[in-house]
Amino acid sequence: MKPTVSIIMGSTSDLPIMEKAAQFLNDMEIPFEMNALSAHRTPAEVEQFATQAKERGLKVIIAGAGMAAALPGVIAANTTVPVIGVPIKGMLDGLDAMLSIIQMPPGIPVATVGVNGAQNAAIIAAQILALSDASLATKLAAYKEGLKSKIVKANNELSEIKTWKFKTN
Amino acid sequence: MKPTVSIIMGSTSDLPIMEKAAQFLNDMEIPFEMNALSAHRTPAEVEQFATQAKERGLKVIIAGAGMAAALPGVIAANTTVPVIGVPIKGMLDGLDAMLSIIQMPPGIPVATVGVNGAQNAAIIAAQILALSDASLATKLAAYKEGLKSKIVKANNELSEIKTWKFKTN
Amino acid sequence: MKPTVSIIMGSTSDLPIMEKAAQFLNDMEIPFEMNALSAHRTPAEVEQFATQAKERGLKVIIAGAGMAAALPGVIAANTTVPVIGVPIKGMLDGLDAMLSIIQMPPGIPVATVGVNGAQNAAIIAAQILALSDASLATKLAAYKEGLKSKIVKANNELSEIKTWKFKTN
Amino acid sequence: MKPTVSIIMGSTSDLPIMEKAAQFLNDMEIPFEMNALSAHRTPAEVEQFATQAKERGLKVIIAGAGMAAALPGVIAANTTVPVIGVPIKGMLDGLDAMLSIIQMPPGIPVATVGVNGAQNAAIIAAQILALSDASLATKLAAYKEGLKSKIVKANNELSEIKTWKFKTN
Amino acid sequence: MKPTVSIIMGSTSDLPIMEKAAQFLNDMEIPFEMNALSAHRTPAEVEQFATQAKERGLKVIIAGAGMAAALPGVIAANTTVPVIGVPIKGMLDGLDAMLSIIQMPPGIPVATVGVNGAQNAAIIAAQILALSDASLATKLAAYKEGLKSKIVKANNELSEIKTWKFKTN
Amino acid sequence: MKPTVSIIMGSTSDLPIMEKAAQFLNDMEIPFEMNALSAHRTPAEVEQFATQAKERGLKVIIAGAGMAAALPGVIAANTTVPVIGVPIKGMLDGLDAMLSIIQMPPGIPVATVGVNGAQNAAIIAAQILALSDASLATKLAAYKEGLKSKIVKANNELSEIKTWKFKTN
Amino acid sequence: MKPTVSIIMGSTSDLPIMEKAAQFLNDMEIPFEMNALSAHRTPAEVEQFATQAKERGLKVIIAGAGMAAALPGVIAANTTVPVIGVPIKGMLDGLDAMLSIIQMPPGIPVATVGVNGAQNAAIIAAQILALSDASLATKLAAYKEGLKSKIVKANNELSEIKTWKFKTN
Amino acid sequence: MKPTVSIIMGSTSDLPIMEKAAQFLNDMEIPFEMNALSAHRTPAEVEQFATQAKERGLKVIIAGAGMAAALPGVIAANTTVPVIGVPIKGMLDGLDAMLSIIQMPPGIPVATVGVNGAQNAAIIAAQILALSDASLATKLAAYKEGLKSKIVKANNELSEIKTWKFKTN
Repeated sequence: MKPTVSIIMGSTSDLPIMEKAAQFLNDMEIPFEMNALSAHRTPAEVEQFATQAKERGLKVIIAGAGMAAALPGVIAANTTVPVIGVPIKGMLDGLDAMLSIIQMPPGIPVATVGVNGAQNAAIIAAQILALSDASLATKLAAYKEGLKSKIVKANNELSEIKTWKFKTN
Repeated sequence: MKPTVSIIMGSTSDLPIMEKAAQFLNDMEIPFEMNALSAHRTPAEVEQFATQAKERGLKVIIAGAGMAAALPGVIAANTTVPVIGVPIKGMLDGLDAMLSIIQMPPGIPVATVGVNGAQNAAIIAAQILALSDASLATKLAAYKEGLKSKIVKANNELSEIKTWKFKTN
Repeated sequence: MKPTVSIIMGSTSDLPIMEKAAQFLNDMEIPFEMNALSAHRTPAEVEQFATQAKERGLKVIIAGAGMAAALPGVIAANTTVPVIGVPIKGMLDGLDAMLSIIQMPPGIPVATVGVNGAQNAAIIAAQILALSDASLATKLAAYKEGLKSKIVKANNELSEIKTWKFKTN
Repeated sequence: MKPTVSIIMGSTSDLPIMEKAAQFLNDMEIPFEMNALSAHRTPAEVEQFATQAKERGLKVIIAGAGMAAALPGVIAANTTVPVIGVPIKGMLDGLDAMLSIIQMPPGIPVATVGVNGAQNAAIIAAQILALSDASLATKLAAYKEGLKSKIVKANNELSEIKTWKFKTN
Repeated sequence: MKPTVSIIMGSTSDLPIMEKAAQFLNDMEIPFEMNALSAHRTPAEVEQFATQAKERGLKVIIAGAGMAAALPGVIAANTTVPVIGVPIKGMLDGLDAMLSIIQMPPGIPVATVGVNGAQNAAIIAAQILALSDASLATKLAAYKEGLKSKIVKANNELSEIKTWKFKTN
Repeated sequence: MKPTVSIIMGSTSDLPIMEKAAQFLNDMEIPFEMNALSAHRTPAEVEQFATQAKERGLKVIIAGAGMAAALPGVIAANTTVPVIGVPIKGMLDGLDAMLSIIQMPPGIPVATVGVNGAQNAAIIAAQILALSDASLATKLAAYKEGLKSKIVKANNELSEIKTWKFKTN
Repeated sequence: MKPTVSIIMGSTSDLPIMEKAAQFLNDMEIPFEMNALSAHRTPAEVEQFATQAKERGLKVIIAGAGMAAALPGVIAANTTVPVIGVPIKGMLDGLDAMLSIIQMPPGIPVATVGVNGAQNAAIIAAQILALSDASLATKLAAYKEGLKSKIVKANNELSEIKTWKFKTN
Repeated sequence: MKPTVSIIMGSTSDLPIMEKAAQFLNDMEIPFEMNALSAHRTPAEVEQFATQAKERGLKVIIAGAGMAAALPGVIAANTTVPVIGVPIKGMLDGLDAMLSIIQMPPGIPVATVGVNGAQNAAIIAAQILALSDASLATKLAAYKEGLKSKIVKANNELSEIKTWKFKTN
């Protein structure tokens, strides 16, 4: 089984965040790989990874990083495979990482999600793959439909609250 | 009893904040309803709710949301009933939610309160309803008068502190 | 003709912003007054204004202020008439005024709009008055309908652009 | 020619930014459409657009918005087609729009680019389409190669500067 | 004993911060009073307090407040006695309170200290009083001299650390 | 004539801001001096100035600085004369200077005014001097009374506007 | 053994951060000293330290400070020895300290590292010393090589995770 | 003449800022080179430059970059030569670039100067080189002495201002 999505993180300390991407890809039955690479500590490995990404058959790269988060941008610099950046919360509620990832110069984009938004990054990856995979598209639609159940459940819980006399539902 | 105020929240995780609005409306004997709806997960339900709000007799809608808080604005887009937005604290001390709610384009306002300010949202709702309800106006005035007692009590507590020799009261 | 809405500003330098509120109220045929009052320079006048607002028949107060914008909150402290605050842009893109207006303590709310959002403040005022004025409600609905024409016009303009060969509309 | 990418903006005032996306798509010979739609002014049209996007054959949606920028998120709420959000500069150097677009709840992602980064949004769109279009992939690789020429040219210009005696190149 | 400094706070919840001002004034043997007053809940009392401050013999007023912290400015609006504002930490690390207090319009200043800086406010009060009180000036000079002892002690503690072989002191 | 207030600035580029302090002191007939000193470029001169301030008869020091604005704090470190800091606008709308001046450690306060608030700094200086100068106190009270005239004039201008049919005053 | 690097901090409360600098220098066998000095509490000692730094043989000074962090700048004002500033986290996630240290006027630089980045400050010091110390340069190169092992170890740990069926590595 | 300092920038649009570094190095008679390289557009060239820096005899690298400013960090990742980062002003007054440069992970420091602080970067470079170049040290000391003349001149200009009657100097 060859991976179509690669999840990259700077260290295993990012795993509690990034594993939400892994879980979603797994649920969608999308083969993926996970690696730890650092733009600042293993720059040569990052470059090698990025330049080979396309020929290795990767379709989407998800890169999580915190602080002066250069990793997603450096990967994007070395490939035309779409790169999704995940700012990991550190200083300023993750604003440092968000700005370091999203404010790319013209020509080298990184598609960025919210702070710690690894699951959302995986959903974007799935949406991209679903463009040429009808079965995945069906799963995604079902997943999306399922999101409503949370709200319906929340709504039901609210209806059951009888604390207040003037509450009418 | 038909509700005149509707409290909307994105999930029951917002309940600990939003129930302060419920409590105030209940104290003022204003009939209200509470529902969970999401601009991003149940957009059709949000639209239906908002477009029917006026004919259902709602006078004020209180909508709490966090992060990229589109809910209050999307409701306001679909009704002329006044919408009060409550930014729920998330990233940047709630500044992301505050800016997402308050910075509406010309024509579609959301009346926004401070971060987690659900009780204040309910007070604004009551102030609006009191414009044509003299009995409610009297209750509101009494509530406002009552706010001073907290300060008076605080002041008395301060007077009783005898820790410092040079304190003169 | 007795005013139902009062527009307050700290100086005539705020007029270019606040007159958008005046224009909207006028378009809706809502009688209003405009005054300059300062929480810091004429505090007694502000207090007098606020304490008399209800008995003078005011239904909504729109207060614009910049920097350490205490005016809306101080008015709200002295009345139960709904107060809509308009942060006027100064330092930090108006963020100082926004925080000074919106972050009110529990019990004394100010319904706040976006930076320089005077027109939106007037729309909220109209929405409140329309709750007991069917004719105004009709005008508001028409205004809201009219907002779409801008987008339709914009959309038409976009269709007419023939700059790009691969543009399909 | 059926469009595969749709560029959405809230008004023609966003055109000077968003046309950079159009230009890039055109250069890559990707058929696209441009429309003006507003989450707050024409919510029904936005919903209709988004729910029909997939069956109309759209592969990527690029949505630009400023201030309380709900448009990209509301589109994403109604489709599984990948949505790329472009924060348009307004208040706080565009930080309000960026946070309003990027901080989406789990389940409904928007792939966000930097402030006014419409060209980069179009590049991401091209990268996605290139996954199943070898000819486009070749064009993208050539474009990327071409980016270096700017730097080479800049470098040459720097070499030619002879202002300083101790400059060695 | 008549107070020369008045410490004002919005509620006893601010006491843990504001008592540092009390302690310093007490240590300097400066007679002071402490009161709880709120610009938003007891505006009339605040105005009365401020307008009478001078004739009551107050020389300096220290006012602590959080969030939309109008208290120091409203007091300053009603007196020419110097007002020192203490931003109490709330949202945004106290930045909302700081901006609400410090950004006063021309003519009505509030001398502001750092977030939670009640002790420093008391020191400024003492510095002001010491201008016409030689005995207090001597105490202040001694206090200032004493501040160095902390550093000297810290320095000695650092010298005693023998953890590192290459540490030379 | 011996100065009682000293105005310090880092360079003559700060003069357009700081001269508002000079003007106010002059209007109040308070003898003052103006000097350019830099905490970073002439640290010895700053220290000498500060340590001699008290014996030279200075009662208040007003220090304006921008960016990493160390000047007010370094002066305060070397004297017990009250120091009023004026953040000069530079980066981040002056927020860098404000934080560099106001966030002093316990024991060494700087009384800080708003960004570019040199006039307000001079008013605080006058308020301090007026505590033991009845004639100055009278002038300050008159000045404060005069501030209202601006508002009254603004109010009159607003009354004269007849643009809107539904404006009632 | 004469120190070539001096670590300065404002109090022993900064020791848990600054000792990471000490540890790194010790590991590199660079003789160093540690002292507590305060720009605001012991300004004369700071000046004396800085003016004597060069003749005492110091090559690099590492100065950590929080809040209105004047220490690094004041040291830099009094020496031409390179000064590395370490912002210590306090308010706004350390942004106040960072801006207070980094935004130096032209002519008096402080080389600043990230918030709480004491170890990185020590690495810069070592890099500077290594320019004329081949043995140290070798140690630094080895240290840098060693940084990769963390990532390799992290990568190995990730490979061993077998939680997900569709994980391919 | 072999360069000891290398100035790197992303494009010639950064030249107006970065040439201040060139000018200072030239004034100090330090041989330097200037090149345009981009972490995102020419990553291979950046890596090659950085890995060869030491053997080419470079002692200090000055790298200026804006927005998601990865350049200084990526250079630092590939060399042990000290790297000084210059944030170039873009969004958020350059705060995005500053955070992208300064918040480096442990082990890979970038010595960062203030926004647009290219001259200060060159001064740090000179301070580093002066550690083993007595003649340069003398020049630097003279330069530093010369900085005072600006202040003295400013002070003289202030003395000559006779606008105010109560100005005493």
